[in-house]
Amino acid sequence: MRVARAGGYACRVLTFDEYQQRVLASARPLPAERRPVAEVANLLGLVTAEPVHSSVSLPGFTNSAMDGYAVWSADLRGATPDTPVVLPVAGDIPAGDTRSLELAPGSCWRIMTGAPLPTGADAVVQVELTDGGLEEVRLREAVPAGTALRHRGEDVQPGDEVLPAGTRLQPRHVPVLLSSGVGEISVFPRPRVAIVSTGDELVAPGEPAGHGQVVDSNGPMLGALARECGFDVAAVCRSGDSPEALLATVQELTGAADLIVTSGGVSAGAFEPVKLAFTGSDDFEFVQVAMQPGKPQGFGTVSGTPVFALPGNPVSSLVSFLLLVAPAARVLAGRDPEVPTVEAAVAEHWTSPPGRQQFARVVFDEDGRMVRPIGGQGSHVLGGLAGSQALAIVPAGTTEVAVGETLRVIPLDGLA
Amino acid sequence: MRVARAGGYACRVLTFDEYQQRVLASARPLPAERRPVAEVANLLGLVTAEPVHSSVSLPGFTNSAMDGYAVWSADLRGATPDTPVVLPVAGDIPAGDTRSLELAPGSCWRIMTGAPLPTGADAVVQVELTDGGLEEVRLREAVPAGTALRHRGEDVQPGDEVLPAGTRLQPRHVPVLLSSGVGEISVFPRPRVAIVSTGDELVAPGEPAGHGQVVDSNGPMLGALARECGFDVAAVCRSGDSPEALLATVQELTGAADLIVTSGGVSAGAFEPVKLAFTGSDDFEFVQVAMQPGKPQGFGTVSGTPVFALPGNPVSSLVSFLLLVAPAARVLAGRDPEVPTVEAAVAEHWTSPPGRQQFARVVFDEDGRMVRPIGGQGSHVLGGLAGSQALAIVPAGTTEVAVGETLRVIPLDGLA
Repeated sequence: MRVARAGGYACRVLTFDEYQQRVLASARPLPAERRPVAEVANLLGLVTAEPVHSSVSLPGFTNSAMDGYAVWSADLRGATPDTPVVLPVAGDIPAGDTRSLELAPGSCWRIMTGAPLPTGADAVVQVELTDGGLEEVRLREAVPAGTALRHRGEDVQPGDEVLPAGTRLQPRHVPVLLSSGVGEISVFPRPRVAIVSTGDELVAPGEPAGHGQVVDSNGPMLGALARECGFDVAAVCRSGDSPEALLATVQELTGAADLIVTSGGVSAGAFEPVKLAFTGSDDFEFVQVAMQPGKPQGFGTVSGTPVFALPGNPVSSLVSFLLLVAPAARVLAGRDPEVPTVEAAVAEHWTSPPGRQQFARVVFDEDGRMVRPIGGQGSHVLGGLAGSQALAIVPAGTTEVAVGETLRVIPLDGLA
Repeated sequence: MRVARAGGYACRVLTFDEYQQRVLASARPLPAERRPVAEVANLLGLVTAEPVHSSVSLPGFTNSAMDGYAVWSADLRGATPDTPVVLPVAGDIPAGDTRSLELAPGSCWRIMTGAPLPTGADAVVQVELTDGGLEEVRLREAVPAGTALRHRGEDVQPGDEVLPAGTRLQPRHVPVLLSSGVGEISVFPRPRVAIVSTGDELVAPGEPAGHGQVVDSNGPMLGALARECGFDVAAVCRSGDSPEALLATVQELTGAADLIVTSGGVSAGAFEPVKLAFTGSDDFEFVQVAMQPGKPQGFGTVSGTPVFALPGNPVSSLVSFLLLVAPAARVLAGRDPEVPTVEAAVAEHWTSPPGRQQFARVVFDEDGRMVRPIGGQGSHVLGGLAGSQALAIVPAGTTEVAVGETLRVIPLDGLA
């Protein structure tokens, strides 16, 4: 760790890994909540805080795996295509038949897939091995007991764990969850993220930007990232260059958000509202991080709520959100903080600043295995940001990124 | 193509590829709509139907890339740490300053990052190369014209294409979209998908399942899949075993949905409401597809709306949705129909039925490069479905899946 002096503020320079570990160190999952299973659409993406145990058998009753005839297998002994066994058909058992039926020896029931097996039957003969008769049926093949049955409880027994703790709920978990007879489950709630863009230069989206003004695109972008990453967006708002107003806004948001993100106002200038609002607090720290983009960073807590003070330009904000905020918010959600990466080879040379870990905007070649830089690495280049498909991670020790080298890259599609 | 006869219905057997091509053949993007850019949160995930051209310059005005002093570079000729140039400071220009200021020769302005450059200035000296003076400042280094400036229009010029047609809008597109001065853009709307589970055996989620009954988990699962894949869910409803009631339900849904999915009621049994409702229509076809799971399939149109009739068990429904419905709905959304796959090696032997393309439930090994089967391949096994992480694609010609073989697999996380 080195100590640097920039613009009148004493700042420590941390490596990216040191800083990421620091902001994750105090992150803990939010208190778990019990939620009704029947409202499963609201549970998707959440993580189970406790294992889910079935209270029922699945299937709940022994049923037919085929359309055919429910029989006592001993009745079919010796049946062949040339010497079929002929049985009277007691009736139809469709799926959803709630009657408790019995099979009389020497008879059969026509039965549909999923319909409950009548007591006394021990097999189903599929319709293709019969003449499909309705009054009586010719059965052309003997079948062993158990044929074409799904036995009560063969998939799940009462008390079985059907989902372990730590499962992030996906569509494929819905059937077992809804079928397990459980009314409520315990999950970590979705973290509520609030966004505050700062700066007197900002005007709202849709308003014209006059001389000296820019449209606030950071707030909506960070809100979109938060949603894309699976978090709730508690607020997207703006604050000017008044540290007092910013502090009041942040304090108010602590009641509605589990995590607050500010953008802008953290560098070395004279009017840095975020830095002015929180410098001096024991619970807040401004540092320089050996990363590009995203060098000036602030992190702390206000009334116990974590606050990330990100640099203000859009590229720095996006990179800082993905690499620092999203991992911390995933921990709040009971998820793995890790940022997913894939490997790719470098298709075109570029440079990286000495001593800083670079997150370079890149595009994939057609097969998705090679990357090349896009849009220059100036962090205000909106066109290049829009055109990029991934962030390539260049280690701090590398200044020349050579063709053919392999890098880890963070795809920007499918952040969820 | 072979012709099979199953359960009294003449059915063609198609290969999976033949059938997938058939259901995609008539799919076209929905009519494009114009939407306000300011409501950008509603645009995310949608695809641009036309290119977006900026109506403004970005940056909109030449501004400072650093905190420092705006100067006329010629005034600093010969400045060194030992022989600094001293200039009077005309005042501060913070970011967001909307005044049109001028630089008098032989003076300077203190200027912040992003603040508009005063007329007459041609460079910014970063604060670290000065004594930071407020009345007058000692500038310790000569800088060439253009230093630390972001020129009006250097990122984007009026009329520049900032997003091509066919862009699926992501958070990284938000800054350029909001900054480009464009009020509305043309996008393909999000397809509205309606789901109808069929069968007298179904009870609503949250209701107890009696003898012969099962909880309808398919409807909520298919709804969850639709949402996860980026579509709107117009309805999730149930219909019993009455073909007339089903037909009425589907006809009503054509007013609210761009695509309708039914589950169940398509196999060889006696009470198959979906088959009974649509068989005989010129616009509907029931086929057998050489795939496992998912063999019985129906597809057609009702009042011009595409209807997918999927088999009823949850695993078959999920596989059919991902491989057939989702690609078609992506075409409606202007997206690429392709189902994303990755490569993985087989870690444990399993078998596949002869002549059918298998979509086998598998889990990844820890490094994500090898897969093994899970949960048996019986399509009613809910526990195995919940525990699976991907579908491995086994070609129709393969019956023994050998250790070490490489397969394409469809990851079940991150379907968006």
